[in-house]
Amino acid sequence: MIAKLSKKERHKQLNKKIQENPFYTDDELSEIFSVSVQTIRLDRMELGIPELRERIKTVAEKNYQKVKAIVGSEIVGELIDLELGKKGISIFEPTSDMTFLKTKVIRGHYIYSQAESLAISVIDADVALIGVANIKYKYPVKVGDKLIAKAEVIRQRGNKYFVWVKIKIKNKEVFRGKFILVSIMEDISQKRGDEISENSD
Amino acid sequence: MIAKLSKKERHKQLNKKIQENPFYTDDELSEIFSVSVQTIRLDRMELGIPELRERIKTVAEKNYQKVKAIVGSEIVGELIDLELGKKGISIFEPTSDMTFLKTKVIRGHYIYSQAESLAISVIDADVALIGVANIKYKYPVKVGDKLIAKAEVIRQRGNKYFVWVKIKIKNKEVFRGKFILVSIMEDISQKRGDEISENSD
Repeated sequence: MIAKLSKKERHKQLNKKIQENPFYTDDELSEIFSVSVQTIRLDRMELGIPELRERIKTVAEKNYQKVKAIVGSEIVGELIDLELGKKGISIFEPTSDMTFLKTKVIRGHYIYSQAESLAISVIDADVALIGVANIKYKYPVKVGDKLIAKAEVIRQRGNKYFVWVKIKIKNKEVFRGKFILVSIMEDISQKRGDEISENSD
Repeated sequence: MIAKLSKKERHKQLNKKIQENPFYTDDELSEIFSVSVQTIRLDRMELGIPELRERIKTVAEKNYQKVKAIVGSEIVGELIDLELGKKGISIFEPTSDMTFLKTKVIRGHYIYSQAESLAISVIDADVALIGVANIKYKYPVKVGDKLIAKAEVIRQRGNKYFVWVKIKIKNKEVFRGKFILVSIMEDISQKRGDEISENSD
């Protein structure tokens, strides 16, 4: 939290903050600068800083161009960070059409598909498919939750990539998955998971 | 294969065959009765036997009424057999909008969602969520493949259900998954996978 500043000084600092981290919400910025959310919105308008959703999209679009093993539009969620071959981060906000009717809980396969597509995104190979996945759903996810998925390439052995994905809502881990991916050449009819031991750590 | 019969006798036998197993294709029936596919189609029309797709739907709709832990329409694929608390079978034909652009292979999460929704369907509990899943993709799936998934409840321990799902195309296994489901009461915010050991067989 920054002590109350002049408008000019606040604008300067605001620009800097957003440059450092484009993912601040207006709520967070209003707390940082000790002003109302309305003031932050006006500041952003005056400075020509787009709203959070637009900023996320802009960053995601840049990352989509780096991705190799999947087409950007096939990624479930917005890819907000990517170091190809190493790690990546995506944000996903499930919508009400993704819930189970009985429980209003988000269906597992939507969460799974965020993790799966992120795991494929981080791989530095032209084509890759999932061979094995060991996954755990820890807490139910509801509409309005913002899922932050982080993927890390743990190691590579031949044409196999071991990728861990953890998904959090705020600081609570709701899902984790270990994926073994197989990079493939033209012949996509070749075997995948069968040659992989299921419990390779 | 049955030796060539009179039309009247063939009609009688055809009715019987379909009653025993509503999932014969016209191709298979034409082989069984040593007549052309066209003849089988005419036979079906005369006898008022709907085409395979309709027959599958009719069977599936009956099964949807037995399902407890999921709403019938949420099942990915057609549920063609169900013994609640024991086992179930579903058929799913992925379409071209489900492929990866680069490989034309069906995206893993569609196959996963067939398996996941079938695993939930077979559970004899009012509400159930996936806690843990260990899955293996063995061969790539393409458009035109017909996925036959079989789920079996291996055991139940308290509110946990261990369900195995195997998916085949003809006789080739393309996917297998071990799911641990947790049946839950009203309080859906309770923990799920966290209390489950990841490698419980």
